Amino acid sequence: MTEFSGFTPLVQSLPASIPFVGPETQERASGKVFRARVGANESGFGPAPSVKQAMREGAEDVWKYCDPENHDLRQALANHLALAPDQIVVGEGIDGLLGLIVRQIVTQDTPVVTSLGAYPTFNYHVAGFGGRLVTVPYRDDREDLDALLAAVKREGAPLVYLANPDNPMGTWNTSADIVSFAQALPEQTLLVLDEAYGEMAPDGIIPASNALLDSSNILRMRTFSKAYGLAGLRCGYAFGSTGTIASFDKVRNHFGVNKMAQIAALAALQDQDYLRAVCDRITASRQRIEEIALANNLQPLASATNFVTLDCGRDAGFAKHLLEALGQRGIFVRMPGVAPLNRCIRISTGPDEALDILQEELPEAIKTADAAGR
Amino acid sequence: MTEFSGFTPLVQSLPASIPFVGPETQERASGKVFRARVGANESGFGPAPSVKQAMREGAEDVWKYCDPENHDLRQALANHLALAPDQIVVGEGIDGLLGLIVRQIVTQDTPVVTSLGAYPTFNYHVAGFGGRLVTVPYRDDREDLDALLAAVKREGAPLVYLANPDNPMGTWNTSADIVSFAQALPEQTLLVLDEAYGEMAPDGIIPASNALLDSSNILRMRTFSKAYGLAGLRCGYAFGSTGTIASFDKVRNHFGVNKMAQIAALAALQDQDYLRAVCDRITASRQRIEEIALANNLQPLASATNFVTLDCGRDAGFAKHLLEALGQRGIFVRMPGVAPLNRCIRISTGPDEALDILQEELPEAIKTADAAGR
Repeated sequence: MTEFSGFTPLVQSLPASIPFVGPETQERASGKVFRARVGANESGFGPAPSVKQAMREGAEDVWKYCDPENHDLRQALANHLALAPDQIVVGEGIDGLLGLIVRQIVTQDTPVVTSLGAYPTFNYHVAGFGGRLVTVPYRDDREDLDALLAAVKREGAPLVYLANPDNPMGTWNTSADIVSFAQALPEQTLLVLDEAYGEMAPDGIIPASNALLDSSNILRMRTFSKAYGLAGLRCGYAFGSTGTIASFDKVRNHFGVNKMAQIAALAALQDQDYLRAVCDRITASRQRIEEIALANNLQPLASATNFVTLDCGRDAGFAKHLLEALGQRGIFVRMPGVAPLNRCIRISTGPDEALDILQEELPEAIKTADAAGR
Repeated sequence: MTEFSGFTPLVQSLPASIPFVGPETQERASGKVFRARVGANESGFGPAPSVKQAMREGAEDVWKYCDPENHDLRQALANHLALAPDQIVVGEGIDGLLGLIVRQIVTQDTPVVTSLGAYPTFNYHVAGFGGRLVTVPYRDDREDLDALLAAVKREGAPLVYLANPDNPMGTWNTSADIVSFAQALPEQTLLVLDEAYGEMAPDGIIPASNALLDSSNILRMRTFSKAYGLAGLRCGYAFGSTGTIASFDKVRNHFGVNKMAQIAALAALQDQDYLRAVCDRITASRQRIEEIALANNLQPLASATNFVTLDCGRDAGFAKHLLEALGQRGIFVRMPGVAPLNRCIRISTGPDEALDILQEELPEAIKTADAAGR
């Protein structure tokens, strides 16, 4: 398998790893379709009926390239967030925007700070541009703001990543602490504040949308993949100061946001009643996952997201066996990748039918995992 | 408008230019929607009814992330092209794939060879990674293979871009000449052979899909944006040797291909009857554009694409005035960006209703352009 000899030394040195294996890959390997898909923090509740209708009508329009300015969506987001349109950039999901911001800051050996066990796709982008990851342990299963700040200062890092609420743990820092952290950063350090789960967070976690706009070194990212139920459409956005947002125009793929995604995201934003209803369903689903967990002697972590992380109370080996046993029973779940977080598994909220299957299969899966660990 | 101070020197040096201004931007400026959208080589014939139906049904599935392996689509493409799936990578349009291949080869001052006036988005990516564009003039409105090869050798360029059939001129080189050119390249030089318009090219222009697979330095790119009528969905693919294709897995955004795009592209590939019918309509539409042009003393260039480039027989100023006059009359067209190609305008094929408007308005638009030039 010869590859082209002229790839850059950096590219030649990269592993062919991927941040996540998709459930479809597992389904192809097993020959069975998962009965409950609660592993990727997608929304099994789906997008609003009004959004589906907009997509069905949108099928007539996708022969056209998208508007490269994403004008209508940015305008609607600006109204929704009480910002100006030029404080917002729309991209191919937060994943795409993370790649673009890393590209603008990271070159060979640039130090980049993140929590140990935080978002693998961010790490993938940093590695892909030659950066050097500097990781800080979680503290009591939460991202440790003091330690992140100390690492930034120690390393002179120009980039730090923080998710609030956090993935994969579902925990959070308060809005006040986030603002203090952001303001304490050197102005030569850009904070990516990933708020993918922001719409479903209780009060007191998400700063006001205009709270940090005066700082050119803060970017906040949101997505239509989670609460809005449009993971497959790849539509996210970042907001921040106009100068920093404008720089994306130098490097982004201008026609890259799918037109169907623009149509669906705009319709989703306009149906806030549905969003509120879904958030109520997510809250109820979280409670049910917690009850199922406790009935099986697994400890649920308090969550501000659309998933619940369950502390299995044992080592990573047990959690991994439990993940596999659930998979064999047709339930797709995921788990954190590194210690000590990997004593946990992570279950996405979803419709009752999915959680019925979880409730039914979990006791036997635990027995299987117990036996495998002996 | 302060921007973050820590962007790389390269990023700070980049202009905030965009490769193309979208027709929507012009529509917002004028306050009027274009009556005929024949400027971006989209397919006004649209995708197949079967594809629209698949998209309408797909609205139920987009709450899921896409399969990051793009398995089903790659398998179908492999069958269609008589290749192996691991000789194919699917990406967010050819634009996205171009960005990924440039990123893998180009660093500061890397020489990259292309024709002067060829695809601006490729040039945008090269500039975005700090590369140095080395351009070769067209010869008789065709890309000049001998001159491209000479430039590659003279500069020791690791990357050369060639579109066949060509955009923006619609002309072509023969399959035999393309194969000879590819085989004459140093193995340290990767050829991106952009075949975006390949499905509609007459026989003798597109090499067999397996013609150049033994070479690790050749990538061919195709899209669902043109003949398949799915420009807004951003789905393209590259094929080549397994080693070179595998390298994309090191840098691509694994979940980046929109699920709706995967669904629609798969359905489009399975409806080859529709594709053949559309190609016939494109051929007829090309002929009609040629007739309209000749009736107005504009010279159509022979085209192997879904557009016809018209030599206005005057200077760039006239062509630009004509473009503007057509725009004022509700007709969106584009023109090549540099001399001597910019004596031309470029008109996409489309439904009769669009060409009726062109036929009706062109004589007056020419008068307006004439007057403006005096």
